[in-house]
Parts: sequence; structure tokens; C-alpha cells
Amino acid sequence: MTDSVHIVEVGPRDGLQNEKVTVSVETKIRLVERLAATGFRTVEAGAFVSPKWVPQMAASDEVLRRVKRRPGVAYPVLTPNMKGYDAARAAGADMVAVFGAASETFSRKNINCSIAESIDRFRPIMEAAVHDGIPVRGYVSCVLGCPYEGDVDVARVAEVSKILFEAGCAEISLGDTIGVGTPRRTAEMIRAVRDAVPAERLAGHFHDTYGQALANVWTAYEMGVRTFDASVAGLGGCPYAKGASGNVASEDVIYSFERSGVPTGVDLDAVIESAAWISDALGRRPESKVTLARATS
Amino acid sequence: MTDSVHIVEVGPRDGLQNEKVTVSVETKIRLVERLAATGFRTVEAGAFVSPKWVPQMAASDEVLRRVKRRPGVAYPVLTPNMKGYDAARAAGADMVAVFGAASETFSRKNINCSIAESIDRFRPIMEAAVHDGIPVRGYVSCVLGCPYEGDVDVARVAEVSKILFEAGCAEISLGDTIGVGTPRRTAEMIRAVRDAVPAERLAGHFHDTYGQALANVWTAYEMGVRTFDASVAGLGGCPYAKGASGNVASEDVIYSFERSGVPTGVDLDAVIESAAWISDALGRRPESKVTLARATS
Repeated sequence: MTDSVHIVEVGPRDGLQNEKVTVSVETKIRLVERLAATGFRTVEAGAFVSPKWVPQMAASDEVLRRVKRRPGVAYPVLTPNMKGYDAARAAGADMVAVFGAASETFSRKNINCSIAESIDRFRPIMEAAVHDGIPVRGYVSCVLGCPYEGDVDVARVAEVSKILFEAGCAEISLGDTIGVGTPRRTAEMIRAVRDAVPAERLAGHFHDTYGQALANVWTAYEMGVRTFDASVAGLGGCPYAKGASGNVASEDVIYSFERSGVPTGVDLDAVIESAAWISDALGRRPESKVTLARATS
Repeated sequence: MTDSVHIVEVGPRDGLQNEKVTVSVETKIRLVERLAATGFRTVEAGAFVSPKWVPQMAASDEVLRRVKRRPGVAYPVLTPNMKGYDAARAAGADMVAVFGAASETFSRKNINCSIAESIDRFRPIMEAAVHDGIPVRGYVSCVLGCPYEGDVDVARVAEVSKILFEAGCAEISLGDTIGVGTPRRTAEMIRAVRDAVPAERLAGHFHDTYGQALANVWTAYEMGVRTFDASVAGLGGCPYAKGASGNVASEDVIYSFERSGVPTGVDLDAVIESAAWISDALGRRPESKVTLARATS
């Protein structure tokens, strides 16, 4: 197993989706292009969901069509159903993602169906994607806690991960959606999941709501996980704690690995510049401590 | 080695010292008393330094005299020289601290003498303290980087730690003064130091300037360190990066250990209340993600 890490930049989707200020299509395109230029090999570019539900993701087809693609970079988009998948393909998607949950209540409240029903809904997407040669990321949310159920059984996380993996997902992204995980609980969860899905097919997706994200990233790294989702400037928030942090900031993850001698392939200074730029566009301060320290030193 | 951790609350000294807004003596006394009531066994209460240099630490003698002491709680104060030590003892100090550095340039710029000279200056304090039965904490700053010299040799950190330990310090607090450390570098540093000083006599003192503090805390924990300095609400900043974070927030450290099943002996909810209270008094937002999430959920 290689010592380098692969950081999946989710700012333009998971990040923006949870920001209050709406940005223009041009800004979204520019953000995706800037991030791809910094060295990220995967930049989540949008979501093919109803704009009624997620206004910030409107015009994801236009973003995908107009973004100047870079060779070697994938631009996954979220596709909750076949309608979304077909639209994403028509817009030239080269990678898609489905969004499941390890918590029954969260699944019902978030996507209005049981976990089993959600997986049934994803199966035709995964079949089509395998047929089309399109890799699918499978998000599993609430892996370390649920806003409705509290603690989540790690065996349930492993079970859902295994089903998605066996149904065709190339990668399983384990999401601590509300950021309540701590290093020991992360270790327990990864231990359970990697018995069901090989560690090299796992991604850690940690939110920094309680300041634990980077410590959890390192715990997962020590256990063999080499892919981590992160969001430029820490874009995104937590719908369950207004004003709290969302995704771990890409800059802080890159800084940590690079200064520890673990290559990320990403140019930290360029990401900091992009972070400052998109934060300005959103009228907010960056949530990245690295970017704040650099901007003020 | 026990599995519980001991958190040294440094907010009223290391925290306040780096805050721009000056608070009254009454507020300082109330802060120390509130924090001691939450379960911390060590609450750093002030510094016997010239008020010309550190205005925020003026009247530390009055704070120490007037604080209602709790049995089992120690209230260390910083004593840079014998004059400070004598004044601290006269005010009833039950623990003192000296502040050295692992970087020659930092030592000269911060305390105006070489590392060797600073240790010579501390020797009579440590001799007097040993005679008086007063434990001494030895701070070693710049253990993971220096604002002037950049990287710091871990062998130098071990050497300074060993000298202070052998000269009578009961505990060596290893300070990442500018917060540039990452988990791997922290591991390398602790590995070097614990060959010179037993791990149970070490404390980790991490600043969150670049968002790395909690990950470093866990790295040090995994290597046998069981004492960590932290500051309520993340009080304090970084004089070398205006607007950046300072000490790791006590709430985030307590949350992380408690939810990982490692007892701290501290009541998290009570610390969060104190954090919100002192942040109001300073007119700033708390730097603790736990406190921010709780306040807004």
C-alpha cells in the first residue's frame, strides 16, 4: 500500500450545497477549474438533484458541460436516481456518486425511503454505470452518529458499505455527517468496515463540527485508508448545528500530510488562493486554520 | 500507565496573555474559580512578570490571593526569575512554571538571553522551589518549529527538556508555540524526548494555528503522554499570525477524550458554559468548535 494520499475535493458540491449564499454558474465553473488546476485528481462538480430541494446545485449540467476538463482529473456528480444518472451522462459525467446512510431514520428523513429502498434505487444506476464504464462512489452517511438516532452500530456501517461495494461501487466514502466521531470511535468503525470492504476502496469523509476531523483522518490513515474527502476553505456547514463547521478543510489536510512527508500531489499555496477567492465570493471567512494563518501572518 | 488524561487549563494565563481585550481582576478571579469548579486539577492562574511587558498579567498576585482555593486543585503561575518566584510565594503560589525554549533565536527574542543563560536563571528558582516543596513546570517552547529559525532539531528539544528535568522540574510541557507541528513530526519529537525524560513527566502543549493541535494531542497520547495543556474557548492567539488560533480549546480536547472512553475528570458542559462566558467578556467568538456547535445547535 502506497504512502501517498488521494484527496477528493468536495467543495463545489458537498461544500457549496450547504452554503447559504448562492453563487453563479460562472463562479461554480471557475471554482471547479481552479481546484482541478491545483493538482486534485478528483473534484466533485455538482449534483443532479431537483433544484427545488437543493437550489445551490441548479445548473450542474451546465457546470459539467462547460468546465474545461483536465486530463487525469475526474469530476464526479451526485446522482440520486436514474433520471439524474441519465442527465449526468448526457452532460458528460465521468464519475457519479450515490448517497446512502447507515442510519434508518436519517435515510427516511433525508432521502425519504428506507436504507433497503435506497439501495434498490441505486442498483439500476450502478448497473448502468458499470455498463457505461463509469466509476461510482458510494457515500455512506452517519457512520459515526446520527442526528436522530445518536450512536450508530458499526456493524450496520459495515453491512451497508458491503452491499454498496458488492453492487458495484468502486469506492465507499464513509461520512461522519454530523462530525461527532472521535479517533477511538473512528478506529472501531474502520476496523469493522475493512473486514467487509478492502481498505484501499475506502474513503474517509470527516466533518469538523466538533473539531475532531483531522485527528480522525490520521486515525483512518494509520489503519490503511488512503483517500480522504475534504472541502476547500472548509466550505459547507452542518444543517444540524447552524453556524458550526462542515467538511474538514482541504488546506488543513494537505498541510498535515505534506508536512508529515506524505505526498498529496496538490499545491497547497494554490488551494489557499482558491480558498480565499471562494470565501470572498460567499462573503464568509474561510474555515481553514491554515488559510486563516497564512492570510494574517 | 493509566488510561485517563490530565488536562492543564492554561486559559487564565497563556490564553488571556495573548488576548487584546484586557479583563478586570474580578473577571480573572471568577474565570479561575469557574474553571477549577469544572473538575480541572490544574488551572494556570497568572504570571509574575513585569506588567509593562505583559499588561494582561498585571495583578496576578491579587488573583492568587483572592481566588477561593479548592482542595486537590493546583494553581501554577509563571515565574521568570527569583523576584517573580518570591512574589508568587508571598501570594501563596502552590506550583510555579518557568518558560524556556528549544530555539536559540526565540530565546533571545522572547526572554532576551540564550538558552543556557535562561537555564542558569531558572536554577535558583528550581532550587528554592524544591526546598519549599513547590512543584515546578518547565515549559519548553518552539518544540516543533520556531518563527525565526524554522524547523527545530528534536535532539535540541530533548536536551533542553532533560536539563530542566534534571534541574528539578516535576513536569516538562512541550510547546508547539506556533502550531506548525503535524502528527508525524510530533511523533518524532516525542520519541526523542521520552528517551531523556519519562513520558509520564511530559505534557503536550499544542497550538491550533494550522488546525493540527488535536491530531497532535492524539499522537502524543498514543506514545504515552497523559498530560495536555489546553485553553478554555481556545483563548489566546498567535503573535506570529494575527487573527490565527492559539492554544487548542479545552472543550475540543475533553470532548475527544471523553467520547473515546478516556476519562478527563472534567465536566464538559460546565467548561462550555465558562467558555461562552469568558468569550462574551472578551467580545470574541469562542475558538472551540465544540462550544460553537453546542451554542448554535
